[in-house]
Amino acid sequence: MAAATVSNKRVILKRYVTGLLSEDDMEVVTVEAPPLDVPTGSKGVVVKNLYVSCDPYMRNRMTHHELPSYIPDFVPGEVLENFGVMKVISSGHLDFKAGDLVWGMTGWEEYTVINNPESLFKINHPELPLSYYTGILGMPGLTAYAGFFDVPKPKKGEYVFISGASGAVGQVVGQLAKITGCYVIGSAGYDEKVNLLKSKFGFDDAFNYKKEQDLEAALRRYFPEGIDIYYENVGGKMLDAVLPNMSLGGRIVACGMISQYNLEQPEGVRNLYYIVTKRLRMEGFHVFDYYDRYYRFEEEMAGYLKEEKVSYVEDVVEGLDTAPAALIRLFTGRSVGKQLVAVARE
Amino acid sequence: MAAATVSNKRVILKRYVTGLLSEDDMEVVTVEAPPLDVPTGSKGVVVKNLYVSCDPYMRNRMTHHELPSYIPDFVPGEVLENFGVMKVISSGHLDFKAGDLVWGMTGWEEYTVINNPESLFKINHPELPLSYYTGILGMPGLTAYAGFFDVPKPKKGEYVFISGASGAVGQVVGQLAKITGCYVIGSAGYDEKVNLLKSKFGFDDAFNYKKEQDLEAALRRYFPEGIDIYYENVGGKMLDAVLPNMSLGGRIVACGMISQYNLEQPEGVRNLYYIVTKRLRMEGFHVFDYYDRYYRFEEEMAGYLKEEKVSYVEDVVEGLDTAPAALIRLFTGRSVGKQLVAVARE
Repeated sequence: MAAATVSNKRVILKRYVTGLLSEDDMEVVTVEAPPLDVPTGSKGVVVKNLYVSCDPYMRNRMTHHELPSYIPDFVPGEVLENFGVMKVISSGHLDFKAGDLVWGMTGWEEYTVINNPESLFKINHPELPLSYYTGILGMPGLTAYAGFFDVPKPKKGEYVFISGASGAVGQVVGQLAKITGCYVIGSAGYDEKVNLLKSKFGFDDAFNYKKEQDLEAALRRYFPEGIDIYYENVGGKMLDAVLPNMSLGGRIVACGMISQYNLEQPEGVRNLYYIVTKRLRMEGFHVFDYYDRYYRFEEEMAGYLKEEKVSYVEDVVEGLDTAPAALIRLFTGRSVGKQLVAVARE
Repeated sequence: MAAATVSNKRVILKRYVTGLLSEDDMEVVTVEAPPLDVPTGSKGVVVKNLYVSCDPYMRNRMTHHELPSYIPDFVPGEVLENFGVMKVISSGHLDFKAGDLVWGMTGWEEYTVINNPESLFKINHPELPLSYYTGILGMPGLTAYAGFFDVPKPKKGEYVFISGASGAVGQVVGQLAKITGCYVIGSAGYDEKVNLLKSKFGFDDAFNYKKEQDLEAALRRYFPEGIDIYYENVGGKMLDAVLPNMSLGGRIVACGMISQYNLEQPEGVRNLYYIVTKRLRMEGFHVFDYYDRYYRFEEEMAGYLKEEKVSYVEDVVEGLDTAPAALIRLFTGRSVGKQLVAVARE
């Protein structure tokens, strides 16, 4: 006797993207859900997706790469995937049971079969908003934490600049820098975000880069002593303006370069000779290399949240139908805080 | 009774340079030498210059910088200065006496008064060619040594690429990399230099970058496994071609960017996002930070030279009259090996 069929709404990639990402590059379709009970013998789990995250690196996976990149390209016609918060519906794996709350890589759809549940993280603080596990308690939070503490090894009193500062990563980096005793300035592209940085996240100062005629001069004004640590989220022109303003021996954490992801050809950065003359270190990193420290991080960050030492702002849209537009908001700068999609509120 | 006057030929900067350095930017003049006996009470020394070095970074000092750079700009009308090999003629300093052979910063002239002789290094191996102290046993040698061993911390078996590989620094880096057990390829702009790299310096391979239509593809061919360490001497287009060819976790030592020094506006480097996706570290350094290790380095390198574990090629011109042309040869790529000027052969 066949089980009643369950439908599964999902967001697929329609085609490889060139230039600016548009809603037409994605499509919301409804298909039949996979069986909600894992097949006998499977060590996988079936999850119901509660929240899925919109993250800038997804754009990179929408371009076809001739050489393998650090993560596989998405495939036209197939469901998009990214980090999400999920409830386990059925499990063939000893470490998971129905009802468990987890976060990890999943599909942009209602139900997903996850064949390698070892990649999932348990949620140990369900008393905090579950959606936080797409952000401050998830991949972007660990990105901020590892990228700030592990890469540049910040010291009290250092001058820190963060671009894209109100985003999922930037807002956390700034607050961690304040906890460390650094002087912190952030940039963003809308006054609303600049105000958030100053009023809610406790940055020492912030500015709207779109209102600066001369970014290099603006940074010289904001950092007369120079920048010791630059947490790079945007790339391009901002990096060019930052380089001459770095202190001797300064460190640049290359976390992302969102300003470049939708360009057919990236902007050229001209001021790299400052890396020599100022003895700078510019370093990329991957959050994947830090997952073994996740649960320690989760405890620390959950503590900061409960003690209200750290604030957090999300931009939540409802339902997968709005997911493509939400992803695009990242690149137009319209997201205020961490952008995510609520797939189901249970 | 006045001492007989001694003349002092010198090379002065005529004007701040924009664009391509030309002989007209410098002038060889003859003035009266300073008193060859140090004045009573002085703690300085007077030196006779034997060899002066031509180094690419000098071009940077010929441009007027609005903000202080890591080293002062040259001053129009005043003598150029750089590293040289000198004989002490008279000394007011306890550590030096007439006849001592030293190397350090001096003027592009016959006689120079050095008021801070603490900055000079004694020459402990006068049995080796004295001119080597402008290169492999001097600043460029220590640059190669510190920049290769200290910055990327190379391991046996790693793949190393060196641009500007036949120059004063590059030829030494390549040979140190071979001593370390690395696989080493270098690039240069003339076949004569490419041949030197392979036949004399023991590089595993070498190529003429000017003969490659597609530098990125050429590097993919030479490094099918990727580049673990890139020793950067040239910048610009070469850096753009290297970035996609780096291995995961690769290190870029930013030693110099000679291709950029004569440009009114540096070339834009577009492939910086690979720093994120490949978790690269790009790091500048200054040889000045390593001078406390100089004498240890001198012993090690003198040993390599005597045991013929390391070869060395110089491009020596005779006399200060030819010094401006010799400096320009660095930037036209015409120098074969370490470029220097013999001021006096005694």
